[in-house]
Amino acid sequence: MKFHSTVLALVLALVPALINSAPTPEAKAKWVKSGRGHRVIPHDSRQAKRQYSNTTSPDAPVCGDAAAAVTAPVPNVWEDFTDQEAASVAYWLFEQSDLNLTTSEEAGEWDNSVLLVELQRPNKTDVIAYLDGSAPAPERYAHVVLNVRATEEPYYADILVGPLPIVANVTTWSPLDYYHTRKTEGRVRNLGANDDTLYEKLLYPTSASIKDITLELWNGTALGHDNDTITIWGVDPMGQEDDRITSWYMFVHKSATGFDTTSILSLGLYFLVDQTGRDPSQWKLLGWFYNNVWYDSTEAFREAFFSPGFEKLPINVDGPWATTDQSGPVLPQDTLSPPMAIAPAGSRYSIDVEEKYVEWMDFSFYVGFSRDTGLTLYDIKYKGDRIIYELGLQEALAHYAGADPYQSGTAYLDSYYGFGPYAFQLVEGYDCPAYATYLNSSFYVSETTHTHVNSICLFEFDADYPQQRHSTTTYVSATKNTYFSLRSVSTIGNYDYMFTYSFYQDGTVGVEVRASGYIQGAYYANNEDYGWHIHDALSGSMHDHVLNFKADFDILGTANTVQLVKNVATTETYPWSQGKPRNTMKLQRSFIESEDESRINFGENALTQVIIVNQDEKNKYGEKRGYRILPSSGTAHLTIQNSSSTVNSANWAGYDLQFTRQHDTELTSSHPYNSQDVHDPPINFDHFFNRESLVQEDVVAWINLGMHHIPHTGDLPNTVFTTAHSGVQFMPLNYLLGDASRQTVNQVRINYDAGHATEVETFGQKDDVCPLNNEVGDVNQELWEYVGDVVVRKYPFDPNHPFEEVLGIDK
Amino acid sequence: MKFHSTVLALVLALVPALINSAPTPEAKAKWVKSGRGHRVIPHDSRQAKRQYSNTTSPDAPVCGDAAAAVTAPVPNVWEDFTDQEAASVAYWLFEQSDLNLTTSEEAGEWDNSVLLVELQRPNKTDVIAYLDGSAPAPERYAHVVLNVRATEEPYYADILVGPLPIVANVTTWSPLDYYHTRKTEGRVRNLGANDDTLYEKLLYPTSASIKDITLELWNGTALGHDNDTITIWGVDPMGQEDDRITSWYMFVHKSATGFDTTSILSLGLYFLVDQTGRDPSQWKLLGWFYNNVWYDSTEAFREAFFSPGFEKLPINVDGPWATTDQSGPVLPQDTLSPPMAIAPAGSRYSIDVEEKYVEWMDFSFYVGFSRDTGLTLYDIKYKGDRIIYELGLQEALAHYAGADPYQSGTAYLDSYYGFGPYAFQLVEGYDCPAYATYLNSSFYVSETTHTHVNSICLFEFDADYPQQRHSTTTYVSATKNTYFSLRSVSTIGNYDYMFTYSFYQDGTVGVEVRASGYIQGAYYANNEDYGWHIHDALSGSMHDHVLNFKADFDILGTANTVQLVKNVATTETYPWSQGKPRNTMKLQRSFIESEDESRINFGENALTQVIIVNQDEKNKYGEKRGYRILPSSGTAHLTIQNSSSTVNSANWAGYDLQFTRQHDTELTSSHPYNSQDVHDPPINFDHFFNRESLVQEDVVAWINLGMHHIPHTGDLPNTVFTTAHSGVQFMPLNYLLGDASRQTVNQVRINYDAGHATEVETFGQKDDVCPLNNEVGDVNQELWEYVGDVVVRKYPFDPNHPFEEVLGIDK
Repeated sequence: MKFHSTVLALVLALVPALINSAPTPEAKAKWVKSGRGHRVIPHDSRQAKRQYSNTTSPDAPVCGDAAAAVTAPVPNVWEDFTDQEAASVAYWLFEQSDLNLTTSEEAGEWDNSVLLVELQRPNKTDVIAYLDGSAPAPERYAHVVLNVRATEEPYYADILVGPLPIVANVTTWSPLDYYHTRKTEGRVRNLGANDDTLYEKLLYPTSASIKDITLELWNGTALGHDNDTITIWGVDPMGQEDDRITSWYMFVHKSATGFDTTSILSLGLYFLVDQTGRDPSQWKLLGWFYNNVWYDSTEAFREAFFSPGFEKLPINVDGPWATTDQSGPVLPQDTLSPPMAIAPAGSRYSIDVEEKYVEWMDFSFYVGFSRDTGLTLYDIKYKGDRIIYELGLQEALAHYAGADPYQSGTAYLDSYYGFGPYAFQLVEGYDCPAYATYLNSSFYVSETTHTHVNSICLFEFDADYPQQRHSTTTYVSATKNTYFSLRSVSTIGNYDYMFTYSFYQDGTVGVEVRASGYIQGAYYANNEDYGWHIHDALSGSMHDHVLNFKADFDILGTANTVQLVKNVATTETYPWSQGKPRNTMKLQRSFIESEDESRINFGENALTQVIIVNQDEKNKYGEKRGYRILPSSGTAHLTIQNSSSTVNSANWAGYDLQFTRQHDTELTSSHPYNSQDVHDPPINFDHFFNRESLVQEDVVAWINLGMHHIPHTGDLPNTVFTTAHSGVQFMPLNYLLGDASRQTVNQVRINYDAGHATEVETFGQKDDVCPLNNEVGDVNQELWEYVGDVVVRKYPFDPNHPFEEVLGIDK
Repeated sequence: MKFHSTVLALVLALVPALINSAPTPEAKAKWVKSGRGHRVIPHDSRQAKRQYSNTTSPDAPVCGDAAAAVTAPVPNVWEDFTDQEAASVAYWLFEQSDLNLTTSEEAGEWDNSVLLVELQRPNKTDVIAYLDGSAPAPERYAHVVLNVRATEEPYYADILVGPLPIVANVTTWSPLDYYHTRKTEGRVRNLGANDDTLYEKLLYPTSASIKDITLELWNGTALGHDNDTITIWGVDPMGQEDDRITSWYMFVHKSATGFDTTSILSLGLYFLVDQTGRDPSQWKLLGWFYNNVWYDSTEAFREAFFSPGFEKLPINVDGPWATTDQSGPVLPQDTLSPPMAIAPAGSRYSIDVEEKYVEWMDFSFYVGFSRDTGLTLYDIKYKGDRIIYELGLQEALAHYAGADPYQSGTAYLDSYYGFGPYAFQLVEGYDCPAYATYLNSSFYVSETTHTHVNSICLFEFDADYPQQRHSTTTYVSATKNTYFSLRSVSTIGNYDYMFTYSFYQDGTVGVEVRASGYIQGAYYANNEDYGWHIHDALSGSMHDHVLNFKADFDILGTANTVQLVKNVATTETYPWSQGKPRNTMKLQRSFIESEDESRINFGENALTQVIIVNQDEKNKYGEKRGYRILPSSGTAHLTIQNSSSTVNSANWAGYDLQFTRQHDTELTSSHPYNSQDVHDPPINFDHFFNRESLVQEDVVAWINLGMHHIPHTGDLPNTVFTTAHSGVQFMPLNYLLGDASRQTVNQVRINYDAGHATEVETFGQKDDVCPLNNEVGDVNQELWEYVGDVVVRKYPFDPNHPFEEVLGIDK
């Protein structure tokens, strides 16, 4: 169904005004959805810098910031679509009349449009056979998300298009729900289908109805005008009780400084609306909340407000306190250049840029990148054996609590916004060492491919401590700790999540997340039980960050088991103890037998070690070879039990570790539209647990990182990565017969006697050094090359002008 | 009492043979005690490198590895003795006839000698007044430890000598026990007084009595001869039940490779002796233990051994598997120089080397160094206000468990050995970045001062991640994370503990410990419940590392309180929730009221935040200013309850955090001789807890770092620092009004539009760069300057030849 063209024209005519002046209805920026941010940049600056060189000799330095080239053993079957592939699918979709599609530029609230065209990641079952050489590459399919709004019951639809490449009368589409726990043909209701109309018909009019009050309280109005100083934010997720869709809205100051400060400028007035259905005449205001008092009508609020003695509370005003620029006295010696890392012999890793395949020392892996969750690593091999089939983020929950309805209701499930589109260009020398190698990432929006140049970085780094050392009175031995990292940063609205995957020479793999950016603060009034009072009228709203990662371990094959080894206090009598009991400790070993018992925590005092072993692969001493899952910094699971906000949409958040048997049908722990139906979400993680055996099965670990964050004054203006971090390591345990880091030549043994070194053994380290001029000095000059995002048009796609200017809907 | 000189001559004549060939009776090397390691080095290489330059301008680069000079505001009252001070005290002691002292070189088992001459750290009560300008510097006293063995009941004696400098008829000595919980005039029994005789009269004869068996089992003997291939190690602590002193001994292979491998070469045969008292005729063998069978006499063991069917178990043999040198194939690109850190504008901190006073950015502190615990930081100030009066290690427990009596009994309390004497020279470019600044440390042994050159390093470092960043569609802001660290490494026998104190620009202070070096392995037989089988006949003996730190916080004065803020799940009904209860969370705030409730854990899921606040110092928003104690990586407390090995000697080990009211009489949580009387140790930490109020008192935090270590094959040959680490951070919480890192100029803001940077703001960063030739290239050349330890003779002390050659007793 399609609106009459005059209606469409009317809707389109409204759009520019909304975009330029209107608030975003959520705390999270919606520029991807709204199509903003289209930019034009010259062709020649659009390639990722420093991707690779042609130097392939492993012994010659690859000077500069390039990586040596390597050819992936097999093509990357998880690799994103090329521009051509995506465009061909988009063309095909628009040819399918049953889909009744309108281009994003032209689509209004009652049109169907294409939200996503992306590779559907192939099934592990098929890929393993391919990787092991016993089957051809799996066929490629497109995962398409349609925004079906030409209906009274708007919905998002996951569909599968393929096989690819497109062949007329062969390629088909079908509903995609094989990895959903809810079987509704991949359809999930769309609670945001009416956003524009909602603002126009309900929210601004509601705000206008108390314009006199907003002016008196804040000397401002939120009417949808360019010069509004105030805006309206809606809660995420919406209220979904009793078949009604309700939502709380709050007033916030718009930024007055040009910095992204709005999330700490709440004003303390909230209203609740019922916005069920598509008929604006059925929507209604339910009431107001101010200073801990509920008013069930505008009249009641107005009457109270203008009564004698009504307390008007102070407000948050944007200013230097909220901006991130340098401020305060410059510290002694701080204007001198601080230490920095350099790569004196260039990079020591190899990349197949085409296939996004990486080799470092005796590790190798493929990189995938998706809209929902950004980076995923595939087929991680160590010394030639796969240890992890898939390692990547699944979902990030930021669950708030508070005395006010907005904070109490907020529980962001950030894959809704997508970690891919928000993985911006990294800042060289700041986000990653100056010598890092960068890759681009791309994502689909509005029939176009956006490219974030240099949004993935790879680098080696010398830790500030060695990996091994030992001193005696006659010699000392020490080994450098050079590790390798892959990193991206996704800024989802106010928060910047830095994801780092690291590889160490002892065979350890690390996963870390750090958080910076702006907090979402609460209005201070009556919020003492939920946060510190951190600025004039601001409370540092308490929240739990819980980030779920999938780690599909394959330790020497897919037949794996989870072993738990617990330190337990015990009292024992021994053959040698003369009959006397001794208070001591011992190991209590067990296996997780089935999914019944597989949702666990590290527990108090970290007494339990968790190890993925292959019981059939024992080393020569009879010990099962395995990898231990080890917290490297704090981890956290959700404090809240049976959250009223997330209901069933984040059931993965309640434990540190959860293990399931791998099924192609249990691909991800979450779905980006889980927030749209929290009672019955498309993927309810609880449904993965159905008593299946986990003994020598293909075990998948679902691991939560996170922080209990109670922001304090030090979170202003931004939270710092220094203390906001969480990490886990995967450490080989009885996997090899000794510490693999003994292989590195970057170690030294010094023998000494009578106050003199008598031998300095450096094991054949070379001292090839590249010219350093490029690395040192005014590194900041290079920052002028920062470009932001780049767009490639898919529909209509002109391969002769792939980077031509594209008009966004704001043009 | 003193032996007749011919007896003394006999004893001395025996010593060289014992030293050169004899086993050390403990797993921990005893070279400090035995006087080995005296070396001669040329005068000119004896100064610490790179201590300071004369450049004092804060804006000009201090190129090279020097730090800018600064003058400490007041002299360092915790500073170690000068050589002259120590020598003067030693002279004076030998003049006191009531002490009846013999020089260490000449002393036998029945002589009194001086084990330690060191500054007695002044009382906080006195120092605070001095620092605050209201009192003169406290008088200096020497802490002396006497080894009183000219008696049937040998003991160690802590005594105080002073005031200093020595003035005839004014300076006196007195028993030192004011900070012991046990008041026995500072005297602690010495269980090791007879060590040499014990080996001569009991242990070697016992070993000789089964020479046929040791030859058959291991083709070797332990007789105290140079060519022994086997040696005998005694357990620490000794058995101390029922007024008897017993000890288990085990046979181990001596190193055959020249590497320090003995702790992983256990042979599986143990014997128990009663060694109570000083009369060798009363000592006796109690029995043998082999392959889980107890034999109550040598005859019983012998009979069994030569019976048919006696099972002779395999053994651990030294070899390449146990050595740390490079081994295995060299990895691709590994011979190229890896990344390294450089300091392009030299150092950006200032040191008063004379006073061991350090300034970095807006932090300052004094450094102290002691025999028992190595580094301590004093008077840590941030932005001019003291935040911590004292921060340092107290004790390190390594508590083992096992099926055999040696592992089961082992519970090292490492301050017995001392962290000071074992803080060896650091390896430049490996232990610390190549550009680090180094300080020396010194310690007293055998009337001499030893100096470990370059055993403390200080350096700034650029983390591999920024401290802050935020991206939007129009700008990105990012701030470098340059932190400052102070580090030393103490190798206590087999283990290398790396201690790092770090300072961050947001005001955070970090304390970290990492462990490398050799594990103490167990013999494999029957040890399945206590470790993995990791080599031929080796079990990775399970053990808990627990390291206690004292952090005497003074947040805006000494009146502080510990606040706990706990995330708790809750169900609440709100004025706005339409009467519906909501499952959410809230904060539960409380204060630790007294020492009754002050022994706590971080607990499962890290739900509790622990904050030291000053309730009388609120910020403008009414929040109490404070510092949070935050785990930065895993921490651990002791698994074992009421340990039969440590009894009352490590009562600090059972919790993550413990808080007491500061008393000058509760100076340290442990005493280095606690192991000598585990039932009634000189300092029993439990006695600190006597219900005193902790509300706005001078609160001291006793913090445990640690690891539950179950060594696996990857711990061979050495444990790696990469995964064996523990750390805690002290983070300002509502302490300032915003994040202090905004002060740094080492940040950037890039504005962009349409694919181009439009502004790159670098806030006045300079690009002064020093010549880099010294830093890059063959850094390893400098390793030839490694010298080991240096000695200064104190008695007789010749100030004209302070570094003259000194004969150790092995000459």
